[in-house]
Amino acid sequence: MEGKTTDEPAKAVTPDMSAEDKKKAKEAKKQAEKAAKEAKKAEREAQLAEQRRAAEAVLCKTVADVNVDTYGNLGVINSATKSLRVWTTVSAITPSLTEQGVWVRGRIAETRCKSKSLAFIVLRQQTSTVQCVMSATTEDEKDAIKFLASLPLESIVDVYGTVTIPPVPITSTTQPVELAITRCHCVSKSLPELPFQLKDANRPESEMNEEGAVQVSQDTRLDNRILDLRTLAMNAVMKISSEVCTLFSEYLSKEGFVQIHSPKLIGGASEGGANVFKLKYFERDACLAQSPQLYKQMAISADLDRVFEIGPVFRAENSNTHRHLCEFVGLDMEMAFKEHYFEVLEVIENTFCFIFKGLEERCQKEIEAVHRQWPAEPFKWGNKVLRLEFSEGCKMLREAGFSDIPDDISQFDIGTEQEKALGKLVKAKYDTDFYYMINYPLGVRPFYTMPHPTDPSLSNSYDFFMRGEEIVSGAQRVHDPELLTERAQKLGIEVSTIKSYIDSFRLGAHPHAGCGIGLERVVMLFLGLNNIRKVSMFPRDPKRLTP
Amino acid sequence: MEGKTTDEPAKAVTPDMSAEDKKKAKEAKKQAEKAAKEAKKAEREAQLAEQRRAAEAVLCKTVADVNVDTYGNLGVINSATKSLRVWTTVSAITPSLTEQGVWVRGRIAETRCKSKSLAFIVLRQQTSTVQCVMSATTEDEKDAIKFLASLPLESIVDVYGTVTIPPVPITSTTQPVELAITRCHCVSKSLPELPFQLKDANRPESEMNEEGAVQVSQDTRLDNRILDLRTLAMNAVMKISSEVCTLFSEYLSKEGFVQIHSPKLIGGASEGGANVFKLKYFERDACLAQSPQLYKQMAISADLDRVFEIGPVFRAENSNTHRHLCEFVGLDMEMAFKEHYFEVLEVIENTFCFIFKGLEERCQKEIEAVHRQWPAEPFKWGNKVLRLEFSEGCKMLREAGFSDIPDDISQFDIGTEQEKALGKLVKAKYDTDFYYMINYPLGVRPFYTMPHPTDPSLSNSYDFFMRGEEIVSGAQRVHDPELLTERAQKLGIEVSTIKSYIDSFRLGAHPHAGCGIGLERVVMLFLGLNNIRKVSMFPRDPKRLTP
Repeated sequence: MEGKTTDEPAKAVTPDMSAEDKKKAKEAKKQAEKAAKEAKKAEREAQLAEQRRAAEAVLCKTVADVNVDTYGNLGVINSATKSLRVWTTVSAITPSLTEQGVWVRGRIAETRCKSKSLAFIVLRQQTSTVQCVMSATTEDEKDAIKFLASLPLESIVDVYGTVTIPPVPITSTTQPVELAITRCHCVSKSLPELPFQLKDANRPESEMNEEGAVQVSQDTRLDNRILDLRTLAMNAVMKISSEVCTLFSEYLSKEGFVQIHSPKLIGGASEGGANVFKLKYFERDACLAQSPQLYKQMAISADLDRVFEIGPVFRAENSNTHRHLCEFVGLDMEMAFKEHYFEVLEVIENTFCFIFKGLEERCQKEIEAVHRQWPAEPFKWGNKVLRLEFSEGCKMLREAGFSDIPDDISQFDIGTEQEKALGKLVKAKYDTDFYYMINYPLGVRPFYTMPHPTDPSLSNSYDFFMRGEEIVSGAQRVHDPELLTERAQKLGIEVSTIKSYIDSFRLGAHPHAGCGIGLERVVMLFLGLNNIRKVSMFPRDPKRLTP
Repeated sequence: MEGKTTDEPAKAVTPDMSAEDKKKAKEAKKQAEKAAKEAKKAEREAQLAEQRRAAEAVLCKTVADVNVDTYGNLGVINSATKSLRVWTTVSAITPSLTEQGVWVRGRIAETRCKSKSLAFIVLRQQTSTVQCVMSATTEDEKDAIKFLASLPLESIVDVYGTVTIPPVPITSTTQPVELAITRCHCVSKSLPELPFQLKDANRPESEMNEEGAVQVSQDTRLDNRILDLRTLAMNAVMKISSEVCTLFSEYLSKEGFVQIHSPKLIGGASEGGANVFKLKYFERDACLAQSPQLYKQMAISADLDRVFEIGPVFRAENSNTHRHLCEFVGLDMEMAFKEHYFEVLEVIENTFCFIFKGLEERCQKEIEAVHRQWPAEPFKWGNKVLRLEFSEGCKMLREAGFSDIPDDISQFDIGTEQEKALGKLVKAKYDTDFYYMINYPLGVRPFYTMPHPTDPSLSNSYDFFMRGEEIVSGAQRVHDPELLTERAQKLGIEVSTIKSYIDSFRLGAHPHAGCGIGLERVVMLFLGLNNIRKVSMFPRDPKRLTP
């Protein structure tokens, strides 16, 4: 109650005043304070308005022939000013803002000029859209409409308008309300000719056969990926990918895992010499890591106990399929366990359940956006993850008529088509899109896989599947240097070439197991997409190194 | 109250009973139920004990000459069984467990055999240690002590013992209590000769001059990195690094950022052709990304609005300094802003404050472990981050007698030594180890840096410093294709070589700014360490490509 600013302070309350007087004096004081407060507020607001005007004058460095107050091209925004505008996001423009004026920045997704005095535009901000209407009575306003109509699609504009509820609710945009705009400034103009139209790239698969539907090819999309990523579905896919990484880290961190970053430049091939990108490292020969396998195992030997890594994995594999990339994101984990690798399987199971549940909770809007364009059955999974023996999977296939499954499966691994078929059989029998198999034949797994404790033809290994496609491969690893040497020799590997790997287990090694997960495959299969290139931000395959 | 198992059920309560009888009947029933429950429990426990014994028999596939019940070598743990042992962590062995029996798995960090009937070992689990004592009266127990004494340091053992509070509290281990062990099984034996002794590598810098102190060189450590990472300080550093990444992702995700993974294999050099690792990509020429610069900017053009990336950055730079690596982890962020790049600076400031605060809260034990070995002043920072003009920094140096700062600083950037000196001046004047400078000369920044709005010699750029060393470089980027072309030409860059980069801004581009943070530098300087190789798990420099 200090700091009065009025000239005549209210009469102070003194001990010898009557009760009535005291009350009056107090009331007067209160009034005076209120008035002072309001005066101060008005003064502050006037100051702010002045600052805002000054800032806007700097911001609106318009070309000479347009009207600063209503429309025009802004100069290149180079941080000359900070106006006091309050910006609203498109997704926040809801009926709760009715009759309020808002500033929004977005892209012009559509323009419809009904006449010289009436225009509609759809403003887009990532996956949210709102319809804006501009109507004119004065010449100046008509010029504004002309200006608006001249802007190419995908240009970025600042608009000021009042939120209104139209008589018929708008269903073609994500926001049901309309913005009656009176100001429109262009921030950045797009080229008048786009490589393809967003409306074509946004078209649902189900409407592809309609008359006049222009198909945008996968290559055209990828050649112009920044435009392609602006489609509602692709924008959503990028957010879902991001969330998978967040959920993976979140769960494992909570479980005491340490996030590591293993080197990608290594002296020798990480898993055998094939399919490896080679390069010169100063004067030496080096190659790009095909997986963090050795290094995550070394992290366990280094007593980090439980580790995970999210990082690029490089495979110089000349595979041109819907599910192979030459560079992809690996979600890797490895952990020491006490007695049985099922301790690790439990963590992997829980990690996936956490990811699936998290996606359903946090990305519902994004999943819907993807399925609007590319419809797919929702991904089916349960908290109790189905575990099958590899032999059981083979039996199911055999019984379903797959005559190419041999009776002796000790050197057999199922192929891509069989995997898919098995996925369907499992779905029919167990009603799940997510399961895993254990106990693969020892002969089809890498030399560092721990043999089965009782059946010498099997190994302590596992693969996980989503919608019948492999997304995870993993196993208990051999942590004993003698057994590792023996296994390598049996598989015809020159032991001297992997000496340092074997030696890394000679200073006391924990039993451990882990797995590598392909991020893009998880996202592709969770969403039921048909090509891994949709999921990688800038995919790399044998034919594509750009953009 | 169903399923009674006693032979004679308690008399049922019927309506014609007396109150006394009713009470008695009820009591009898209660007793019978209790007895049944206990019998069931005993039965269950007997079953469990039987299972446990069976499982342990499998687990303890000991060599013939030792005693299964007290000591011996376990075979290679290959998931033959899951015993029902409850495992305790070393850090959980506190006075609250006094007189309780626990199973622990850890490494032998120290062995002291006092006599044939008394031995002490220190058991280590990551950064926690506990003293175990084994005493013998029988011959069998003496053999067990002999066995224990024969195990090389760093071997992994399972011990069973009772938690006791020793008369004199133990201060040489992290746990103040002692474990009186009666069983000891070796899980994995280490080599008898270690490349260096952990106790030497763990020795605080301050005790290095003491008699008999063996110094372990940096190269010996790095050549045997898995052993080096087991030292208390290094183990802690790995956890702190992990936490920095977690905090970085956590904060930016909360602020609506999307985590991206840009390709590391690219068609052209990412920032000019120098210092780039080149390789063959199938039949084409490719190189490793020197930064995600172009791709994170493209992500903004693709309407992801705010993005971050944690990933490897490759620099074929022949720099052999304490702070350069050829492969390091980049924490990159980029975001669209509305009017002024200070909007982005605010996010960067807040991100760092979140990281520093988070480290202090979540990694106190680890920070202490590092400082015990390598003492350093605690890192000083405040929530209000200090911002200086570049020119102001130059002035401070000039005033402090640095005569090599030119009067005209329009083509000048301060060097490493000057940076450090400035860090000291700033610390003396403002009492902070963390600050940043803005408005660097346009001439010393890359062509894609936005020029200052009013002073043509300056740019909208910034560098952040910790303890006087640069850890972040960033700027507002030019988002206008015409200005970008003009800037490239002025710097003598052949525009045709960066056409696709410039074109990526032609479909409407948001004003944007961002920065790249070196993870290893942040951790090194937060902890006050003297070499970046301490912080990288498996460092890569011009001379080192292994392990």
